[in-house]
Amino acid sequence: MTKAFGAVTEHTPLVALDIERREPGAHDVAIDIAYCGVCHSDLHQALGEWAGTLYPCVPGHEIVGRVSAVGSEVTAFKVGDTVGVGCMVDSCQHCSACDEGLEQYCDEGFIGTYNGATADAPGHTQGGYSQAIVVNDKFVLKVSHPAEQLAAVAPLLCAGITTWSPLRHWKVGPGQKVGVVGIGGLGHMGVKLAHALGAHVVAFTTSDSKREAALALGADEVVVSRNPEEMNAHANSFDFILNTVAASHDLDAFTALLKRDGTMTLVGVPEHPHPSPNVGALIFRRRTIAGSLIGGIAETQEMLDFCAEKGIVADIELIDIHDINEAFDRMQRSDVKYRFVIDNATLNA
Amino acid sequence: MTKAFGAVTEHTPLVALDIERREPGAHDVAIDIAYCGVCHSDLHQALGEWAGTLYPCVPGHEIVGRVSAVGSEVTAFKVGDTVGVGCMVDSCQHCSACDEGLEQYCDEGFIGTYNGATADAPGHTQGGYSQAIVVNDKFVLKVSHPAEQLAAVAPLLCAGITTWSPLRHWKVGPGQKVGVVGIGGLGHMGVKLAHALGAHVVAFTTSDSKREAALALGADEVVVSRNPEEMNAHANSFDFILNTVAASHDLDAFTALLKRDGTMTLVGVPEHPHPSPNVGALIFRRRTIAGSLIGGIAETQEMLDFCAEKGIVADIELIDIHDINEAFDRMQRSDVKYRFVIDNATLNA
Repeated sequence: MTKAFGAVTEHTPLVALDIERREPGAHDVAIDIAYCGVCHSDLHQALGEWAGTLYPCVPGHEIVGRVSAVGSEVTAFKVGDTVGVGCMVDSCQHCSACDEGLEQYCDEGFIGTYNGATADAPGHTQGGYSQAIVVNDKFVLKVSHPAEQLAAVAPLLCAGITTWSPLRHWKVGPGQKVGVVGIGGLGHMGVKLAHALGAHVVAFTTSDSKREAALALGADEVVVSRNPEEMNAHANSFDFILNTVAASHDLDAFTALLKRDGTMTLVGVPEHPHPSPNVGALIFRRRTIAGSLIGGIAETQEMLDFCAEKGIVADIELIDIHDINEAFDRMQRSDVKYRFVIDNATLNA
Repeated sequence: MTKAFGAVTEHTPLVALDIERREPGAHDVAIDIAYCGVCHSDLHQALGEWAGTLYPCVPGHEIVGRVSAVGSEVTAFKVGDTVGVGCMVDSCQHCSACDEGLEQYCDEGFIGTYNGATADAPGHTQGGYSQAIVVNDKFVLKVSHPAEQLAAVAPLLCAGITTWSPLRHWKVGPGQKVGVVGIGGLGHMGVKLAHALGAHVVAFTTSDSKREAALALGADEVVVSRNPEEMNAHANSFDFILNTVAASHDLDAFTALLKRDGTMTLVGVPEHPHPSPNVGALIFRRRTIAGSLIGGIAETQEMLDFCAEKGIVADIELIDIHDINEAFDRMQRSDVKYRFVIDNATLNA
């Protein structure tokens, strides 16, 4: 039995659970989980705010740990390796998306790290709020950061790759002016990564109080999006805007800041639709609004290697698993800088 | 004095007018207009349905004719040449957009062929519903189609380039599946051009009665967009969709048909916003919604040369200028296949 924390029904707090992990098959890697980041998706899924949650629900898809066993066919990992697991634990591995290393767009749908279809008990995958996990080796990442940074590496597996993938896909780099909208779990990584990629980074926040913090993350400028004068000063000037805000908001305020041929990419699905974007603002400067979903396994490895080389990790608050329900409450109030990470050793207590 | 037809106040029919054209300056080309296409913009502008119409308003920006005089510095054109003029007659010519041959995105705003700022009387530009026009040589296009096709060439100057520019910018070509939404003045050119560029073209129409006509234009398939079964059969299969429908409509029905990384480009500004597009449909396949505005002078010339080589012209109904008000009425009922073109010789009658 593996100790875990999860929800047994919707709208109830997370509680201690015992779950089963399968014996590692020929291509499996068994991992003792050291840390697991706490993503907004965990909260939505576990609390039943998204349709289709299967219970018991053990969330968590920002996993880092150490390999405890490997299957007979596994060559890329050995016992003792420091590894990570993100939002996916499997995919069809034969469609064009999988062939291109973009498993997140698998034609058959990727298997999520929790709430995904599996032959394992109880019939759906269970995530990283647990002592251990067993994952197909193709979905395991190598982590080369120093051991003392491991807790702060965990959020790279979702918040990091969700911002890295669009920054790379839309070729963000030196000489470009890049905006990051929303300075939370995703946005704070977006600022760090865009800065490290060499772009001139402007952080957009609704709150003047976040100005210093955003500069400390690596933003070259901070704009309070509720201040029209500050916004207007940046009209028609951005090559790319990464919009991490899932809450319904006025997209036009940001599209107006894009240059001709500029792109704003959304990475959050709003619960209620955004006001319909102004089509004229797109047409008159050939601007684009796009979406992007997490990232593929190959680019996740690329991001982890880049971050290890540059010394980039998330800014976190480490918590005891027994404080997870309070952490969920605080996340709903946006009271976290910028990611809670569970110390999975506290599951033993 | 130059004979013309235009509106003297909003919401009144077009009437015969006498207007003045400037004497050609050193860089000017004077053109005797043979034919002028009738664009929806003409109707909106002349009837005061768009804000800011300056009266008297002589519309028309799909102009073909013959050069009657050239200024002393003009080398590219000579008297007798067959030429065209589209939506633009000037721009700043020193911003990055103009430098790149994308004058439609000029930082200072291009000068429209009608209702644009000019030092000429009466202080705003007047378009092609007239016997003659004088235009800066940089905004004059060479027409190499045979003389008998000239009337049907006129719509290429707006409807043609408005569809050509996005097809080229998004690199439409052989091996691609391309949709064209709306089979009117713009859409019928979109079908012809996408087909000639080698793509597999699917025409989307709301009306089953347009099926045969769309196939005749060069569509490989026709889908009635009000039929969910027909639409679903094309889910996730398009590389590019050119959406020419300005009326407010459900964009999600079409974004759902895009492949991963597919783009839908809008070329019409709706009077009332479209329902807000589903962000999840963008995120889960990294799809894009973009806008595009007419096209630059260099790409307009490229399109005209391509069409002359391939024998492509618009499908038109040639009209007498004295029937222009009836033509406007019929356009508002979408009763035209696919573009009215004025025989400007009828201005003499």
